[in-house]
Amino acid sequence: MNQEELKKKVGIESAKYIKDGMIVGLGTGSTARHMIEEVARRVREENLNIVGVTTSNETTKLAKSLGIPLKEIDEVPFVDVVIDGADEISADFQGIKGGGAALLFEKIVASYAKRVIWIVDKSKMVNYLGEFPLPVEVVKYGSENLFRLFEDKGYNPTFRMNKNEKLTTDGGHYIIDLHLGKIKEPLALSDELSKTVGVVEHGLFTNMVNVVIVGKEEVVETLVAR
Amino acid sequence: MNQEELKKKVGIESAKYIKDGMIVGLGTGSTARHMIEEVARRVREENLNIVGVTTSNETTKLAKSLGIPLKEIDEVPFVDVVIDGADEISADFQGIKGGGAALLFEKIVASYAKRVIWIVDKSKMVNYLGEFPLPVEVVKYGSENLFRLFEDKGYNPTFRMNKNEKLTTDGGHYIIDLHLGKIKEPLALSDELSKTVGVVEHGLFTNMVNVVIVGKEEVVETLVAR
Repeated sequence: MNQEELKKKVGIESAKYIKDGMIVGLGTGSTARHMIEEVARRVREENLNIVGVTTSNETTKLAKSLGIPLKEIDEVPFVDVVIDGADEISADFQGIKGGGAALLFEKIVASYAKRVIWIVDKSKMVNYLGEFPLPVEVVKYGSENLFRLFEDKGYNPTFRMNKNEKLTTDGGHYIIDLHLGKIKEPLALSDELSKTVGVVEHGLFTNMVNVVIVGKEEVVETLVAR
Repeated sequence: MNQEELKKKVGIESAKYIKDGMIVGLGTGSTARHMIEEVARRVREENLNIVGVTTSNETTKLAKSLGIPLKEIDEVPFVDVVIDGADEISADFQGIKGGGAALLFEKIVASYAKRVIWIVDKSKMVNYLGEFPLPVEVVKYGSENLFRLFEDKGYNPTFRMNKNEKLTTDGGHYIIDLHLGKIKEPLALSDELSKTVGVVEHGLFTNMVNVVIVGKEEVVETLVAR
């Protein structure tokens, strides 16, 4: 089974967590896309009655085109469950997200969700976080100075590019990717980045996930974090 | 001496800290305006050679109209001194800023400044912070949920308005003002707000100021914080 098939399998599996009447956070990225397509199928074929809340402009476009009823995050008091991909998940269920540049909206939706489910293929499960570059969403104003600060700290920063320009996120910010190799203390780093002036949000999702669904060769494994 | 005259006096006094060749952060607001006018006068009449870095679109417009040479914050490696107003300063030199909605850019410039000078009239000097509403700059996406979170915490939030609409900052965000009455532990609150998802920055400027210049009836008092 190739990676794409694994992604599809976990996408379909995760949609089983969605029940009638739920407010559902819809993630962003290639694995989330399969989940969204399955949700749309259930809405269409099984009369599943849900309201979707998206985590990016990309997902809004996709969900709309598939006929999933949507509301804005600010129109709902909470989200019952959010299902989203992840770029790395450590053995103790901490994660890095933001490879798709949607980390800010994804984290906002997750922070108002009763239940957070991550769907990944097995290549995303790691012992330590940090092999995947850690995305940091930053205010444009002062971002060159912030870049130098990260350089001075030895964080090996690079600006996320879109063709020849710095990528602008849905929130109107830049992303600086930190190439850290191995993050020894994710919680301490999360605190440090949150307190850094100019940082809007970062891709460390600590103590946030409840269920991880992992696509492996012939099985789908479901891990319950908390 | 009325308040406006006190503001002018400290504005002029603070400009004395600016020396030839400096990169100078130019604050925002009514007191900073007097400082900027004095800087412009010295540039014009005394051939003072400086580069200004502004903290808001409003200040950019003013400084340009007065002929002060400007650079973007990202074009300079640091700022020698930033001179700015403040809305409240406690006895231990912690401050609240953001009454003029420019807190994000002001904090970014201050964080790259070697020396931070605040200029205020004596009404801004308080025993405890919090009588003045604490501005929190927030991502628009999810801001209604964040507002409810602040309500649940008893922070008495209000959205900053501009006529009948929520005010949008120069950075493209909203401002939620917290009506706290008395902030017992500014550093703990600063940490808590920084870590809250959706908060871009907040108006607590802790351990940031070096010199405070206070306009009093017939004197200008200069306090050295650190």
